[in-house]
Amino acid sequence: MADLVRPTDDGARRQAQRLFGTARHGALGVIDPASGAPQVSRVALRPDGADLLMLVSTLSRHWAALEARPDCSLLLGEPGPEGDPLAAPRLTLAARAAMAQKEALKSEWLAWHPKAALYYDFADFRLMRLEVSHGFLVGGFGRAFELSRADLENSKGPG
Amino acid sequence: MADLVRPTDDGARRQAQRLFGTARHGALGVIDPASGAPQVSRVALRPDGADLLMLVSTLSRHWAALEARPDCSLLLGEPGPEGDPLAAPRLTLAARAAMAQKEALKSEWLAWHPKAALYYDFADFRLMRLEVSHGFLVGGFGRAFELSRADLENSKGPG
Repeated sequence: MADLVRPTDDGARRQAQRLFGTARHGALGVIDPASGAPQVSRVALRPDGADLLMLVSTLSRHWAALEARPDCSLLLGEPGPEGDPLAAPRLTLAARAAMAQKEALKSEWLAWHPKAALYYDFADFRLMRLEVSHGFLVGGFGRAFELSRADLENSKGPG
Repeated sequence: MADLVRPTDDGARRQAQRLFGTARHGALGVIDPASGAPQVSRVALRPDGADLLMLVSTLSRHWAALEARPDCSLLLGEPGPEGDPLAAPRLTLAARAAMAQKEALKSEWLAWHPKAALYYDFADFRLMRLEVSHGFLVGGFGRAFELSRADLENSKGPG
């Protein structure tokens, strides 16, 4: 919404931090190395400072895509079944995927995703860190804001 | 899930058709023309045969991206607030965006999205047709299926 971007204010930061700080899953966009086309899939997430952690199987298509090119995008926030899906807030993040310490972060992950205890230790699962560079909040119809990494990092603040 | 893809059967087709045939919104993946990186945003949708219709503002970032490159990806299906987000079914579609007949399809769109009556006629809105080429269903944990366009086109069939 090039013409509709407003100056980022505390209300926008709080809305973005709420979407970010409660994220349990999101839509991950990668580039399919075979076709060069975008590819979106659902991934399990948890926030960690201004980054996101992601548990991913090496058998997944997005794993192969991120190995070829670690640039990715995340969409957070869900509209729910009722109302206009364009009226509900959502947050698009630009990020880069890197490996995270799977063993060291196990208890943090399972506190957020208890059911993942069933497969967290499977050999094909890796924990990745999605290093967020910036974001774009659509807070509702026609209300768009650009966000820096610092805008997200305050998510533990008093807000 | 390269090693987990199963032969496509009627159960997988029905599950994909249910996600496809009820789609009101989805996560659209495009390639940002400035950075070449993927970019995911929420869009309003309605199914139309094996295609999806999408109402989009020319002020949006994904509009500019699709003008530069019409290849895109859609993620349909939502996990809901409870349970393991990786256990809930979802459908990834590969598509190509083309213009649709906005005036001719107005009543179809508004039947699916009544609240869009507020802005459907705005000059900056366009109706696009996302021509689906193929899909990938994750029907639950470790249950993945490849789908052709024909697998989706049966969505009005007896199933």
